[in-house]
Amino acid sequence: MELTLISGTANPPLAEGIAAQLGLPLGRRVLQRFPDGELHVEIAESVRGHDVYLLQPTSPPTDAHLFELFLLADACRRAGASRLTAVIPYFGYARQDRRASGREPVAARLVADLLQTAGLHRIVAVDLHTSAVEGFFPMPIEHVSAIPLLADAIRADLPANAVIVAPDLGAVKLAERYAGRLQRPSAFVCKSRLSGEAVRVDKIVGDVQGRVPVIVDDMISTGGTIAAAFQALQEAGAAAEAVIVVASHGLFVGPAVVRMRELPLLRIVVTDSVSSTITTEFPLQQESLKTLLADVIRRLHDQESLGDLLVHR
Amino acid sequence: MELTLISGTANPPLAEGIAAQLGLPLGRRVLQRFPDGELHVEIAESVRGHDVYLLQPTSPPTDAHLFELFLLADACRRAGASRLTAVIPYFGYARQDRRASGREPVAARLVADLLQTAGLHRIVAVDLHTSAVEGFFPMPIEHVSAIPLLADAIRADLPANAVIVAPDLGAVKLAERYAGRLQRPSAFVCKSRLSGEAVRVDKIVGDVQGRVPVIVDDMISTGGTIAAAFQALQEAGAAAEAVIVVASHGLFVGPAVVRMRELPLLRIVVTDSVSSTITTEFPLQQESLKTLLADVIRRLHDQESLGDLLVHR
Amino acid sequence: MELTLISGTANPPLAEGIAAQLGLPLGRRVLQRFPDGELHVEIAESVRGHDVYLLQPTSPPTDAHLFELFLLADACRRAGASRLTAVIPYFGYARQDRRASGREPVAARLVADLLQTAGLHRIVAVDLHTSAVEGFFPMPIEHVSAIPLLADAIRADLPANAVIVAPDLGAVKLAERYAGRLQRPSAFVCKSRLSGEAVRVDKIVGDVQGRVPVIVDDMISTGGTIAAAFQALQEAGAAAEAVIVVASHGLFVGPAVVRMRELPLLRIVVTDSVSSTITTEFPLQQESLKTLLADVIRRLHDQESLGDLLVHR
Amino acid sequence: MELTLISGTANPPLAEGIAAQLGLPLGRRVLQRFPDGELHVEIAESVRGHDVYLLQPTSPPTDAHLFELFLLADACRRAGASRLTAVIPYFGYARQDRRASGREPVAARLVADLLQTAGLHRIVAVDLHTSAVEGFFPMPIEHVSAIPLLADAIRADLPANAVIVAPDLGAVKLAERYAGRLQRPSAFVCKSRLSGEAVRVDKIVGDVQGRVPVIVDDMISTGGTIAAAFQALQEAGAAAEAVIVVASHGLFVGPAVVRMRELPLLRIVVTDSVSSTITTEFPLQQESLKTLLADVIRRLHDQESLGDLLVHR
Amino acid sequence: MELTLISGTANPPLAEGIAAQLGLPLGRRVLQRFPDGELHVEIAESVRGHDVYLLQPTSPPTDAHLFELFLLADACRRAGASRLTAVIPYFGYARQDRRASGREPVAARLVADLLQTAGLHRIVAVDLHTSAVEGFFPMPIEHVSAIPLLADAIRADLPANAVIVAPDLGAVKLAERYAGRLQRPSAFVCKSRLSGEAVRVDKIVGDVQGRVPVIVDDMISTGGTIAAAFQALQEAGAAAEAVIVVASHGLFVGPAVVRMRELPLLRIVVTDSVSSTITTEFPLQQESLKTLLADVIRRLHDQESLGDLLVHR
Amino acid sequence: MELTLISGTANPPLAEGIAAQLGLPLGRRVLQRFPDGELHVEIAESVRGHDVYLLQPTSPPTDAHLFELFLLADACRRAGASRLTAVIPYFGYARQDRRASGREPVAARLVADLLQTAGLHRIVAVDLHTSAVEGFFPMPIEHVSAIPLLADAIRADLPANAVIVAPDLGAVKLAERYAGRLQRPSAFVCKSRLSGEAVRVDKIVGDVQGRVPVIVDDMISTGGTIAAAFQALQEAGAAAEAVIVVASHGLFVGPAVVRMRELPLLRIVVTDSVSSTITTEFPLQQESLKTLLADVIRRLHDQESLGDLLVHR
Repeated sequence: MELTLISGTANPPLAEGIAAQLGLPLGRRVLQRFPDGELHVEIAESVRGHDVYLLQPTSPPTDAHLFELFLLADACRRAGASRLTAVIPYFGYARQDRRASGREPVAARLVADLLQTAGLHRIVAVDLHTSAVEGFFPMPIEHVSAIPLLADAIRADLPANAVIVAPDLGAVKLAERYAGRLQRPSAFVCKSRLSGEAVRVDKIVGDVQGRVPVIVDDMISTGGTIAAAFQALQEAGAAAEAVIVVASHGLFVGPAVVRMRELPLLRIVVTDSVSSTITTEFPLQQESLKTLLADVIRRLHDQESLGDLLVHR
Repeated sequence: MELTLISGTANPPLAEGIAAQLGLPLGRRVLQRFPDGELHVEIAESVRGHDVYLLQPTSPPTDAHLFELFLLADACRRAGASRLTAVIPYFGYARQDRRASGREPVAARLVADLLQTAGLHRIVAVDLHTSAVEGFFPMPIEHVSAIPLLADAIRADLPANAVIVAPDLGAVKLAERYAGRLQRPSAFVCKSRLSGEAVRVDKIVGDVQGRVPVIVDDMISTGGTIAAAFQALQEAGAAAEAVIVVASHGLFVGPAVVRMRELPLLRIVVTDSVSSTITTEFPLQQESLKTLLADVIRRLHDQESLGDLLVHR
Repeated sequence: MELTLISGTANPPLAEGIAAQLGLPLGRRVLQRFPDGELHVEIAESVRGHDVYLLQPTSPPTDAHLFELFLLADACRRAGASRLTAVIPYFGYARQDRRASGREPVAARLVADLLQTAGLHRIVAVDLHTSAVEGFFPMPIEHVSAIPLLADAIRADLPANAVIVAPDLGAVKLAERYAGRLQRPSAFVCKSRLSGEAVRVDKIVGDVQGRVPVIVDDMISTGGTIAAAFQALQEAGAAAEAVIVVASHGLFVGPAVVRMRELPLLRIVVTDSVSSTITTEFPLQQESLKTLLADVIRRLHDQESLGDLLVHR
Repeated sequence: MELTLISGTANPPLAEGIAAQLGLPLGRRVLQRFPDGELHVEIAESVRGHDVYLLQPTSPPTDAHLFELFLLADACRRAGASRLTAVIPYFGYARQDRRASGREPVAARLVADLLQTAGLHRIVAVDLHTSAVEGFFPMPIEHVSAIPLLADAIRADLPANAVIVAPDLGAVKLAERYAGRLQRPSAFVCKSRLSGEAVRVDKIVGDVQGRVPVIVDDMISTGGTIAAAFQALQEAGAAAEAVIVVASHGLFVGPAVVRMRELPLLRIVVTDSVSSTITTEFPLQQESLKTLLADVIRRLHDQESLGDLLVHR
Repeated sequence: MELTLISGTANPPLAEGIAAQLGLPLGRRVLQRFPDGELHVEIAESVRGHDVYLLQPTSPPTDAHLFELFLLADACRRAGASRLTAVIPYFGYARQDRRASGREPVAARLVADLLQTAGLHRIVAVDLHTSAVEGFFPMPIEHVSAIPLLADAIRADLPANAVIVAPDLGAVKLAERYAGRLQRPSAFVCKSRLSGEAVRVDKIVGDVQGRVPVIVDDMISTGGTIAAAFQALQEAGAAAEAVIVVASHGLFVGPAVVRMRELPLLRIVVTDSVSSTITTEFPLQQESLKTLLADVIRRLHDQESLGDLLVHR
Repeated sequence: MELTLISGTANPPLAEGIAAQLGLPLGRRVLQRFPDGELHVEIAESVRGHDVYLLQPTSPPTDAHLFELFLLADACRRAGASRLTAVIPYFGYARQDRRASGREPVAARLVADLLQTAGLHRIVAVDLHTSAVEGFFPMPIEHVSAIPLLADAIRADLPANAVIVAPDLGAVKLAERYAGRLQRPSAFVCKSRLSGEAVRVDKIVGDVQGRVPVIVDDMISTGGTIAAAFQALQEAGAAAEAVIVVASHGLFVGPAVVRMRELPLLRIVVTDSVSSTITTEFPLQQESLKTLLADVIRRLHDQESLGDLLVHR
């Protein structure tokens, strides 16, 4: 079974990086929009009997990127691909994983089902917002982690007195994983009515006094959580300089650029799961997932175990 | 079983028109986009046990409008709607109904399957690009026609010497239906190598000499087909003034406005299947589908026959 | 459509309580085990065309209780029930909601799919271990909360200086909901390497000094989490007497009884989601779900909104 | 994976021809009817793990031929075939591709779904009545064309003044493909009320005066369309001798033989997609699909591209 | 919900009888065969929202009758029928209920799945060849018995010394049911190598000496089993005159008429599950299922229990 | 594709025997029960791309053994197994193969569907209670027979005057298969109202006078059928000593041990399909299925025919 890697339009540079790692050219495909905005897809080389990987983070514009993935999958299925795997480094709609206030969709589950309908046999995802999303997919999903990669990226220059900070409760386990790898203590920000008052305030749990904070999260969207955490850290006496922010996914939407620019950041380290044109606005460092994802693809293709790459509880 | 009509964002005026015809308020829903572009949907009133109709043409931007429809359907399904019908006056991707050149998707079929996955039980569509698309849907589909409505709209002022013209072979049957209703002869434009030459030329079949052409089609997208037909009609000696164009769906994308403005049109008559802001660019007349679709919904809700409203071969 | 409520063997007293609230007799059924341990099920009255509710918490022995539910559902489906709802006050396997260490099942998703195969159309669950489990079910699920009921049960005697304590991070939101309803501050226990040391210690976040702790959780299984939280509270100077423990589900398996007996508890308040024979071992107070679930069933049957009863984020 | 070709009873000579081309014996199977008319099927050799191709045009009697195909597929599936492809050179019910007059089935879609249920993974079809039928199949379908083969068959003796004639609008594109390949002009017959009169008359579009017509169509059923076209050609002054008729599928049912005999035909050229016993009634020339279909099967088996053999728009 | 009964072509007289019992006209439908043998179906009145029953025994020609049923079901489904029940008084292919010799289909299961695909929600069958066939259907099946009806038909004239005889082991339970109802002893024919010899001989078990045999079976196909049983009865000293044969289904195919004529039969009593033109060849008495099936349909429509009409083990 | 055999807890010795025959170690897996009785499963080695066989008879406790199988299958599926076959030497719930008295499940069908949902692609079963159960499975099932193995086990010492006895009508065909292989006559016990009396008595059909009976059945559950047959044989004058009992499956539940001890048995011969701890209570001889099942697995893995091992009608 031949291996073919095809890229959607969401992140061609990452796709090219992976292909180079694999020593393969990218599968040729034509993606064009008609004047009415409808997408037309064509696979420009035979994939009959191939083990096909479609690289497409479902980053903004999520709907369009998802649709492109559906169409690419349908085209490959009809063209006789033997196995169809979607490599989705950033999985949009993951945060809509429950009905929060009543008559809502469970969008993450719906997307998982739509991907099944489009003909995909397997999914590869990176640092999903919550691990339980794994249970939404009808097909097997390989949930791999960029934490080792990102931890390595900041290890060399990490001050001895750094503290790994989770900006909210949802990131506590993530912070502990970083703390364990980097041999630093961890702390977290907790937004609660701890004192029984009406308003919720951010409180720091853990010793951050005089320490350089490394704020870690799964993703940076508008930057609001990071900015609030920074504020709380300041009030708790953490170092106000050379702050590091680390996240698997850097979306930087809405007011994110403004917010990030206002922080005294040493650097923001994210992967290239989401294609970005932001380069000079603030000290952004992108660590490429290409080696990790090329490894995942190669192992899947060669039927080898992925055990050491998966996100564990 | 209570009837609820909910509108997506693709065509709220039409939805309001239908609701008014039905004597019902539109079902309340919240549709908002998060800063990262993900759509959030919430149904703001109980639909438990209701017979719910979701009004959403999948006009440009088609992907976003489709996704909205998927999310609305999933929300209604989870909220206990008894029956879910999508009313899709304009069905995007209908022209991708076969693999034209090889390794392509059959997008129209794929969309039909995705609608099924989203939880819809039934579809209402108007003047689909080809009737065979009906066979793509796993669930029942009611395919109704706007031709009677549009024919009525031009009947009063129609010159005695008018000729109904199909701008290509695909519209011949459509033109015959109009011709029958309006008691006028029909003609068509035929793009062929009829004389064995290398280039294909537009040729008029039927008697148009000195007659006022009424060009009819299922949809106007970029206006190219209409413009070419007008050119051919001119060369064949048809009247060059007071030309009428009639189509079920008026998308007017890309160069359409420019093209339409250049024609000596008396008027362009379309339905309001697609929401449009074009009002003064050219003599556009929109006939509302509200009465037709309200009738369809009422009959479906009351379990009455739709026979006389359906598109027949 | 007639309403029929049928009970499995997991919790007949609760079923009877619900039936009494609904003013209905329980649907008659025969459940027997053959000498080889195979279960035989028979519905002893007509359910043709009925709206049938099967009451069965999937408490231990979970496998047997699930199987009973599958067989009851298949029997009702074949007997012509119009709608089949499983009311599962305690949903076993909910904690196996991801692959924790590699080649594991996602048992919660698997069970959801098996329930679908058995013919169920809808699920009612109470205080699931994580809300994301909602996304595992292919059919609609109504996820209702026992928190209002339990908060009411302790409100009258609640000391002014009580503090609501989450015994781990997973229960923080739950504790906040109780705190909001009971107008008391909240705190939580956090098991972390906060100081960078190798061992993880339980630390209290929030002011508990001299306060009477009310430990809240979604369930009590072996009681280990509660006991550890009590220990940490003691070390943090909380009152060591009249401690209250509140949980939606009281399983009390393994060393739970021993552990609970050793704590200076005023009382343990749980619902009757799980049938229990423990009555005198420790001060257990069971608040019945019968009124809540009867209300849910009646509203579902009458097609009314459940909005105010659902668990919200 | 071993390749096995098994024939139903609809066209054993074609199956044998394909097998010979592939250098394989036909897979042995037993097909017998019990006295009550029920069909019994048995595969008489192991197909476990094989790549199995079932050759069965669903020509008249269509129901029986389809059922045979269902039973063969089920037998192969249960016997462990790894991949099951139905090669259906003539696909019955293709013309029932929409609801023409109201409460009808969409038989072509239904048959596609039934083939899926019977266990088939892929379909090979030849010159379907409309390409949109491709979108009816849930599984991939390879739609190949016999036009190159048939064009080659008449090229040698084709008069210089031949004109390729489509007998109705549905065949216009087909005629153009033949015209392109054979370097001759094309024309078509058009049944319309072009002059506004009540009756519809056949009119020739294109220059046929004094030319030898080659009437092309996808299939000849009762021959009525061909006969009417001939009549119209005569009236338009086409040559009345040595007329050639070419079609992918020759069913010759009902009055076809009588009609064909009455035409001054040089020859009728069809493929052997449908098994025929007509040999001397009129000048019938059958071009075998065996080489084409053997090529398709070999490529599918060897996972090679079919691109150049597919029907394109 | 309105009730509509539509008949296929397999047994219109029975359908009319049922309709008369129900006090309803038969639903109008058009069933025609095109010259190429393809069936065209149209429902000639609205069934939107109706509770539709399709009456079609799948008697010979089984394939054609099944296909008709598939097409009728698809037409009704698309036309908006709310519930679709196939009433199949004789279910063909029921005897192919296992793989007897290896690589065969399990045709009875396949047909059950095809019926599901065609859109049927429920099946009504009469005296299936084996009750286990019930487990083949994915949808609920009501398996009713004609035994009470047939027993009543022979009770009046039954000689005091009659003995109910099962012509093979498969009919022993059936014979006991008749014996119980008719208060007569039973016996059976057993084809075994009881004495260890190579050949199998028919042996009578039970006391038949001088008694009038009533041979009962689920169906008479070619009559071979009945004829052999008669021969064995003679050898065992049973009365050679006034023999009665009773079966739920009378197919009478192949040599059946000849065989039956040769027996000294008082009468053969069957139901009208299979439409028959045999009236004078031998003393055939047809008991109509119309009352039974009208009762079944009425109860299903009115959501009443069928318990007393079902076949029990 | 690599072959991996994994055992559930139902019969590890048999699994080890099969693995030894195949020259493979058993696949490592962890199966543990949490204190609340929920099962936790983990596959402890890579199965990605493997051809996995799960050995698990669904013997008592059937529910728990089935659930274990579901969880193992789900774990393997998610871990990337290419093909998943359940080898179920004893299939529980097989006797619930129809609705016996009305509103019951068809448990055997339900279990078959649940196995499909759990991700299994194929089943291997041994001597199912009825062959029609084959038709319950949506996936292919290989139904193999232990009769040759068991017949060989008793051949050597079989007395010349032995008679093979079916203890009820359901076992007659089984007895004939043994009789044919062992060259002995057969007889059977028949529980009927043969003489018209109210009570049913066991009667022997066939010559057993003075012969040594070999009672054969598909399974021994409580031993009641065997004991009753022995009693009837005594009354019919069969030898009262050295009786042999042969069955494919030995469950020995409830009063079985007591009953067996009371019979003057030479020996009871069963396979090891069900794990047993009974060794000295009565003269039990277990013939291992390990060679047969290892052969089946090897052939399936090597894509060879199983024809000669299957149960035929």
